[in-house]
Amino acid sequence: MARLPVIGVTMGDPAGVGPEVCLRALGDPAVLERCVPVVFGDAGVLRAVAEACGLATPADVVSRGRWRDRPVSSPAVVDCEAIEAAAVRPGEVAAACGRAAYVYIETAIAAALAGEVAAVATAPIHKEALRLAGVAGPGHTEIFAVKTAAPRVCMMLVADELAVSFVTTHVGYAEVPALLTPERVLEVIELTAAAVERLRGRAGGIAVCGLNPHAGEHGLFGGSEEARVIAPAVASAREKGIDVFGPVPPDTAFVPARRAAVDGIVCMYHDQGHIPFKMLAFDRGVNVTLGLPIVRTSVDHGTAFDIAWQGRASPASLVQAILLAARLAGPGERT
Amino acid sequence: MARLPVIGVTMGDPAGVGPEVCLRALGDPAVLERCVPVVFGDAGVLRAVAEACGLATPADVVSRGRWRDRPVSSPAVVDCEAIEAAAVRPGEVAAACGRAAYVYIETAIAAALAGEVAAVATAPIHKEALRLAGVAGPGHTEIFAVKTAAPRVCMMLVADELAVSFVTTHVGYAEVPALLTPERVLEVIELTAAAVERLRGRAGGIAVCGLNPHAGEHGLFGGSEEARVIAPAVASAREKGIDVFGPVPPDTAFVPARRAAVDGIVCMYHDQGHIPFKMLAFDRGVNVTLGLPIVRTSVDHGTAFDIAWQGRASPASLVQAILLAARLAGPGERT
Repeated sequence: MARLPVIGVTMGDPAGVGPEVCLRALGDPAVLERCVPVVFGDAGVLRAVAEACGLATPADVVSRGRWRDRPVSSPAVVDCEAIEAAAVRPGEVAAACGRAAYVYIETAIAAALAGEVAAVATAPIHKEALRLAGVAGPGHTEIFAVKTAAPRVCMMLVADELAVSFVTTHVGYAEVPALLTPERVLEVIELTAAAVERLRGRAGGIAVCGLNPHAGEHGLFGGSEEARVIAPAVASAREKGIDVFGPVPPDTAFVPARRAAVDGIVCMYHDQGHIPFKMLAFDRGVNVTLGLPIVRTSVDHGTAFDIAWQGRASPASLVQAILLAARLAGPGERT
Repeated sequence: MARLPVIGVTMGDPAGVGPEVCLRALGDPAVLERCVPVVFGDAGVLRAVAEACGLATPADVVSRGRWRDRPVSSPAVVDCEAIEAAAVRPGEVAAACGRAAYVYIETAIAAALAGEVAAVATAPIHKEALRLAGVAGPGHTEIFAVKTAAPRVCMMLVADELAVSFVTTHVGYAEVPALLTPERVLEVIELTAAAVERLRGRAGGIAVCGLNPHAGEHGLFGGSEEARVIAPAVASAREKGIDVFGPVPPDTAFVPARRAAVDGIVCMYHDQGHIPFKMLAFDRGVNVTLGLPIVRTSVDHGTAFDIAWQGRASPASLVQAILLAARLAGPGERT
């Protein structure tokens, strides 16, 4: 019998919905059938959230220091002791919560790099809390890239209906054009092609969106980013044998017939891909970081402070993230 | 019995799908039940397209010069004699086609301003052909604004599922931030509120999108356009009694539960609203220009050069545009 892979799951911001969706995922039948989930978080916070939400408290808790010495064969919590439960105010942005969330991520990355977990799935963090905690880099993707010294990464959102990847992500609207280069667009096309092949088990077709309305309509709108940057990248990728076309008009790229005809769509900026993706797969999507030396997936929703610690948050996206992490990691070995 | 309003329909670019969808709309039962459609175009082109597509040729043709002297009580074509059918190459961008499309628009606007038609519905034009023809202004909306001397206009897309209006439309991606001012955002909120009231027969709730990912996440991304520009406009509109809120994160504004909770969504740029709208209502949407002294609606698709003159284009969007024009114009009087 193939051994199940151990999947590290970070608890996310303690004041958000991360703890409760982790608790639910630890007991999810589909998760337990495919992997051994291990939550990197704070046992005290998880106990407090379990009580507040009427959920089962986690049975198996191991301290951060003893994690390496201990075989893991059933769902567990690695207690990072980063914050006291009493110090967490549910639904509020706090530097201490941002710091704690960062500790969980750091610990899980170290475990993945050491081969102690086969992949990492992350619960949501709050970017402002991270910033208050003095963490550079606006999000998970950037933290993973730095900590694993990955030279080229990109974000991809995956659901049954659609897979979209991003040339830029968490930057202001106005900063996007200066970040588009043929090299970067080519990089994202290559990462996307490799991911599509892993996800589908075969090579797939990829469409690349333009930046401007109607993809610039032959230079009529915008700074000719389509002709100067995107088209050359698509041409280079085709020369490398990738089944890719574009730049296509962004507003028709996602209509049912067009998206059904491709396996992945490369987007130039955050909302170009997030708007259609969330319309189709709100709270079921999985965020995958492409280009890392380790497998990393994430929920595609935020901390949802307005409903935190109330037991109302759906674990669907985290469950999907864990299942996809297990699938991408392949069969693992229990230690 | 209430008289049916006369609705002017411009033929659009002769080389595109405009002529064939006009021919189909002239015979559409739903259209004929609600209005008297009059196509402003070229009779020769319509005859050639009818032959190519196996459609009925228009029975009632009147010359542009005699239009004013003639009562109209049944579907007709006003022959603008702007281009010879033999000069049109289907599916190709040409200055002569851009020029002809412009003549149809000009003639229809003059007829509307003179009260000869109750409203105008427009078939698609090709922006590059217009530019080759030396027409300033990138699209219908701008031409109508200039020709009717309307001081403040905006584009709105309307379907049963969603109504979105735009602070900016046919400009390059990079030009958008500089065009956002509190005055302009307020203007679009006001135009949207008035349109929603006319469309729904009651005042409606309006959401206003941010510009940056996550609506800037409290200033974390972007140039604080949300705090500097959008929030003040929303506050001013609320002071004027409009039921409006925002800025909201663009990527969740269009998920089913959120869009069902409002009657209109104000977008900052073209693709922010066109991507979700086309996903929901591809080829059924209607484009309405708000703020004009005349009612103007349009198809929300392009010239579709790849299928032009083949009889494959759906008239659904033009039919919807004509029906909405008739509804907004109200009961008319036949002359």
